[in-house]
Amino acid sequence: MSYNTFGHLFRVTTWGESHGPAIGCVIDGCPPRIPLTEADIQPFLDSRRPGQSAFTTQRREPDEVSIESGVFEGHTTGTPISLVIRNTDQRSKDYGEIAQTFRPGHADLTYYLKYGIRDYRGGGRSSARETAMRVAAGAVARRVLGDAVRVRGALVQVGPHGIDRDRWDWNETTSNPFFCPDRETVPLWEQYLGDIRKSGSSVGAVVEIVADGVPPGLGAPIYGKLDADIAAALMSINAVKGVEIGDGFATAAYTGPENADAMHMDGRAIAFESNHAGGILGGISTGQPVVARFAVKPTSSMLTPVPSVNVAGEDVQVVTKGRHDPCVGIRAVPVGEAMLACVLADHMLRHRGQIG
Amino acid sequence: MSYNTFGHLFRVTTWGESHGPAIGCVIDGCPPRIPLTEADIQPFLDSRRPGQSAFTTQRREPDEVSIESGVFEGHTTGTPISLVIRNTDQRSKDYGEIAQTFRPGHADLTYYLKYGIRDYRGGGRSSARETAMRVAAGAVARRVLGDAVRVRGALVQVGPHGIDRDRWDWNETTSNPFFCPDRETVPLWEQYLGDIRKSGSSVGAVVEIVADGVPPGLGAPIYGKLDADIAAALMSINAVKGVEIGDGFATAAYTGPENADAMHMDGRAIAFESNHAGGILGGISTGQPVVARFAVKPTSSMLTPVPSVNVAGEDVQVVTKGRHDPCVGIRAVPVGEAMLACVLADHMLRHRGQIG
Amino acid sequence: MSYNTFGHLFRVTTWGESHGPAIGCVIDGCPPRIPLTEADIQPFLDSRRPGQSAFTTQRREPDEVSIESGVFEGHTTGTPISLVIRNTDQRSKDYGEIAQTFRPGHADLTYYLKYGIRDYRGGGRSSARETAMRVAAGAVARRVLGDAVRVRGALVQVGPHGIDRDRWDWNETTSNPFFCPDRETVPLWEQYLGDIRKSGSSVGAVVEIVADGVPPGLGAPIYGKLDADIAAALMSINAVKGVEIGDGFATAAYTGPENADAMHMDGRAIAFESNHAGGILGGISTGQPVVARFAVKPTSSMLTPVPSVNVAGEDVQVVTKGRHDPCVGIRAVPVGEAMLACVLADHMLRHRGQIG
Amino acid sequence: MSYNTFGHLFRVTTWGESHGPAIGCVIDGCPPRIPLTEADIQPFLDSRRPGQSAFTTQRREPDEVSIESGVFEGHTTGTPISLVIRNTDQRSKDYGEIAQTFRPGHADLTYYLKYGIRDYRGGGRSSARETAMRVAAGAVARRVLGDAVRVRGALVQVGPHGIDRDRWDWNETTSNPFFCPDRETVPLWEQYLGDIRKSGSSVGAVVEIVADGVPPGLGAPIYGKLDADIAAALMSINAVKGVEIGDGFATAAYTGPENADAMHMDGRAIAFESNHAGGILGGISTGQPVVARFAVKPTSSMLTPVPSVNVAGEDVQVVTKGRHDPCVGIRAVPVGEAMLACVLADHMLRHRGQIG
Repeated sequence: MSYNTFGHLFRVTTWGESHGPAIGCVIDGCPPRIPLTEADIQPFLDSRRPGQSAFTTQRREPDEVSIESGVFEGHTTGTPISLVIRNTDQRSKDYGEIAQTFRPGHADLTYYLKYGIRDYRGGGRSSARETAMRVAAGAVARRVLGDAVRVRGALVQVGPHGIDRDRWDWNETTSNPFFCPDRETVPLWEQYLGDIRKSGSSVGAVVEIVADGVPPGLGAPIYGKLDADIAAALMSINAVKGVEIGDGFATAAYTGPENADAMHMDGRAIAFESNHAGGILGGISTGQPVVARFAVKPTSSMLTPVPSVNVAGEDVQVVTKGRHDPCVGIRAVPVGEAMLACVLADHMLRHRGQIG
Repeated sequence: MSYNTFGHLFRVTTWGESHGPAIGCVIDGCPPRIPLTEADIQPFLDSRRPGQSAFTTQRREPDEVSIESGVFEGHTTGTPISLVIRNTDQRSKDYGEIAQTFRPGHADLTYYLKYGIRDYRGGGRSSARETAMRVAAGAVARRVLGDAVRVRGALVQVGPHGIDRDRWDWNETTSNPFFCPDRETVPLWEQYLGDIRKSGSSVGAVVEIVADGVPPGLGAPIYGKLDADIAAALMSINAVKGVEIGDGFATAAYTGPENADAMHMDGRAIAFESNHAGGILGGISTGQPVVARFAVKPTSSMLTPVPSVNVAGEDVQVVTKGRHDPCVGIRAVPVGEAMLACVLADHMLRHRGQIG
Repeated sequence: MSYNTFGHLFRVTTWGESHGPAIGCVIDGCPPRIPLTEADIQPFLDSRRPGQSAFTTQRREPDEVSIESGVFEGHTTGTPISLVIRNTDQRSKDYGEIAQTFRPGHADLTYYLKYGIRDYRGGGRSSARETAMRVAAGAVARRVLGDAVRVRGALVQVGPHGIDRDRWDWNETTSNPFFCPDRETVPLWEQYLGDIRKSGSSVGAVVEIVADGVPPGLGAPIYGKLDADIAAALMSINAVKGVEIGDGFATAAYTGPENADAMHMDGRAIAFESNHAGGILGGISTGQPVVARFAVKPTSSMLTPVPSVNVAGEDVQVVTKGRHDPCVGIRAVPVGEAMLACVLADHMLRHRGQIG
Repeated sequence: MSYNTFGHLFRVTTWGESHGPAIGCVIDGCPPRIPLTEADIQPFLDSRRPGQSAFTTQRREPDEVSIESGVFEGHTTGTPISLVIRNTDQRSKDYGEIAQTFRPGHADLTYYLKYGIRDYRGGGRSSARETAMRVAAGAVARRVLGDAVRVRGALVQVGPHGIDRDRWDWNETTSNPFFCPDRETVPLWEQYLGDIRKSGSSVGAVVEIVADGVPPGLGAPIYGKLDADIAAALMSINAVKGVEIGDGFATAAYTGPENADAMHMDGRAIAFESNHAGGILGGISTGQPVVARFAVKPTSSMLTPVPSVNVAGEDVQVVTKGRHDPCVGIRAVPVGEAMLACVLADHMLRHRGQIG
């Protein structure tokens, strides 16, 4: 279980279990002299925190971050930044039959097949709680990127219901519990997810992350491609089953002329007439917005019984009681933003260092 | 331009330009005592080689591989394996205006933005020629995986035309120039791609790679996930814009019960009733077939004129003459197979070493 | 300042400044199911702690370690182990002229030349305080190595005064403040170091670390050699200027027959008649004790004035007041043990995983 | 056997066996636009080549290097540089009893203990032939460092006979077969090594490498220290048992004032009055010459019989016939230079990239 670091120059190592005393991360490689306080990080943790609406799990924790090293008088010093969140809601609860049965589609099966260990207490490291530290690290990555780069996310599909992209308004994403950019879709999703929740079911979603202000030149040829790193980073988020850049899978149906982002000179700058490429060509950023999307499958924790097996090797019907999310895709939005911010910060440092 | 290695334990470093004397790779980390000769590698290179039908570029080279080290008396010794292919078709040709203009959607723009260098001679390292060494390395990876694991690929969509999955027959993939598993779709694609080629256009495609016989337990939690590594590996292939595992983006529209791969005991083994997960849960293989798909955008090299700019900062209409592929997705099939084989070999060695 | 991790499979990332709220480390790659509590770590921290005799610096801190993750019911779980020590003795003090002048031989000069930042508060990350976390990590490494492997250190030279190796007794090392294995040398060093301390001077030392019970086969050819990793690990300790394995520099004067460790069969095992090689041949352990030595230069913090320069670019005479060690080599003994334990644990995991 | 790469940004992967068709290396991370041809590399290979005097092994090969990629019109392009030397002297010979017995002090024992494989054909990867590619890579590293940095090596001790440092003259190193910087020591060594050779014995040596013109600031705190990387690089050379920086082990006997390199301002520059530190403080270069020394043990290949064991587990007396070096330390001089050049080039790129 030894892969808890990501990034090359901006390196984040996360630690901690959902039922231990604390979770944390160490960020190594953050440049010196960058303004940074807990107040730069806390708002992003707050937006990821569960228990904020009927549509996310009811675990209630303040998730208060503290900076333990690497910052002096409000600025980074270039030394490793240690961030810690103390766990406060570790109540011992009755895991019941979940402790002995495997939920179809859940990591507990493969962890058990691989390690022969079963950490039924909240899933251990496979718990979504680990993503809190990704969000904290992402907030630091945003400071590295600076104000010129803006990384924002939105939920663009819930179950079968996609948004109308013509109504896209970023301001909307902060005024509804779904990070939905299309105001008119919100009541539809409320109704739909309310039904899903009441029936004890769950549903998938698609998240879109957009980074504006990314300078051209981030990324490197062959195996250091910006889009390859984004794909790995987003695929590493719990429950993600697909990643695409720009128009993604839709480009398979395009002809060359349909796919080409025509260009012309606008004064001395190159202006693009479209962004099917999602801001990346040959693994290197073009200067256009970087656009990535990922599919989140429905959670396997639900009240609907499913045929499964247990530790004893018996056939069972499994049902998951207790707090959980009808649509884990909602909380994946700030996590996706954080992962993209971390990848971009890493590549910005590589690019500055002329090493990719 | 310093990222020419991929893999952790099974590490492949590729080198060489399409217009230099040779291309090659060094495979470090291949275990000893594995049977290996050139004859294990050559057939895969032959299947990737261009010039085999009217639907791929007409560059004609034998692409004959030689093993320069790491093999003694027909078996690997555990030392680095050096593979070399001499370039034979390096004719100096007239690149014409392509030498000065940027093709919309091509890496030559971002390479130039980043490095200020323009290698118009066949694209330098961004050339698809680099993928020949991926295929060679993939052949070695297959020997590491052994006969119990079978990695096969198919083209499942060309432009807007997908196959009928009910007619899927792996045997078909070797008897048509498209790696198409659906015999009835072949004439349709022939007609469609013939028209595309005649009109000087190009078109995208979707490739599916399936690995049978993958043992459970490959992969690791958090940032060493099997699917994250697959996503990066496939996204690193030229022109790829999207990657998905199992049902991928379709799972966003599923409910939990629809997505759950129900299980029951079959004797002492776990039997799955479906494989929406594509053989991976929580970043770790389940023992079911690993299924990955990727979208290849249409090549930017085409006869259709597109508004663009040139090195001098002028507006131009760009047209690409000379040999090229109407559908680069076709030749991406053996490359995708090779990348999946390499990732699986890497994870199999990690798993054996109890390190992920 | 972004290199705060060492190790390949057993990876330790340290963080924290001597004047911040805490110091800590994250150990990633520790195998599961190993018994581990704070009581396994604390004794080693206690032995490194300053302020225990007149011969080490008088900073007094309990250095109490707590395990924040990775351990459940007294055993490791395979997830990252987070260790933390709160700083309690961060009194703000008058650094006086040291804040503006460079001590000849101290890292503050090169840090300033490189980063243009001057962390006069106890040296920041160049402070020996960082080595506390190395010792903590080393204690965990010992648990990975198991009881069959014993890593012990001794001080074998202080200034010009070496021990008599014929009187070597490991039991002595725990009963004098110098980790000295030769009882008769202790009063000599007491007298000598007492004089050095009174005169406000400092002196160098040589530390020897011996690991018994190391199985044959640890290490790997070419660039993964056990001795190369030991050399880097020991050279990374503050103030170390030389590293040798086995008879080290003395072998330069040997002839081949003098250097050869003759062998014979002892039943079915190979028995060696000497250990000039220090337990390593061709970068791989032989099964004999691994013997490494390193030279520690005298600290640059002393009362003797030395010609130097200050931040303003003026010639000055520099004198260091305040608490410090007359012989930093003493406290380097447990640090050296810890580094060797970490390298051996790392290589034991690589060896188990058949990856070097 | 999977550790065939060294370096972080300037990365060298070597491949090839002494009895295969060729040996080679791939250098990834070399910056673009650096002038480079075979003529920049060949002289360094020539100086390492055996068979040039009675004091080195008689294997005669031209060791002619060719550049296979990464260079266009006499300049690097930033893409991987592939270097190849064809083996021409692979005569099959009678290894006799060496094929079955272990030489005390030779890597063939530990390779066998670890891998259970015995490559008696010239030692396989443990052969000194691998160091030819280190020398080739070192020549490229010198081009990266540029003319302002000069890396030179000398033999300073052969067996018990050291040079007189007061007579040090770099010009002498190229006019005798020992790289000896002290003209008056040459006849002594000739006599001594002639006797050693005639008696079929061997002897150790000490090599010193000095790099002038190294800018201040190379290296990084904690685990990215310049001296730690040098220590690992030099210790990875065949037969090396000790490494020291500056005055090395001698500093253990110094007092603080003796060790301090006093400084004063010389105009606006800092001038040092001595260089006990060997140009490195706190793991970072000071701007003074970087001085490193390493001890090479006598080779285990000699005519003197030594008690040993064989593959069958029997006691034997082992004697090595055939070509070999009475003092392998001689040929280690260009290898040591190359390793220091590679480490410095790596750190220069890291420093430029502000990443250490």
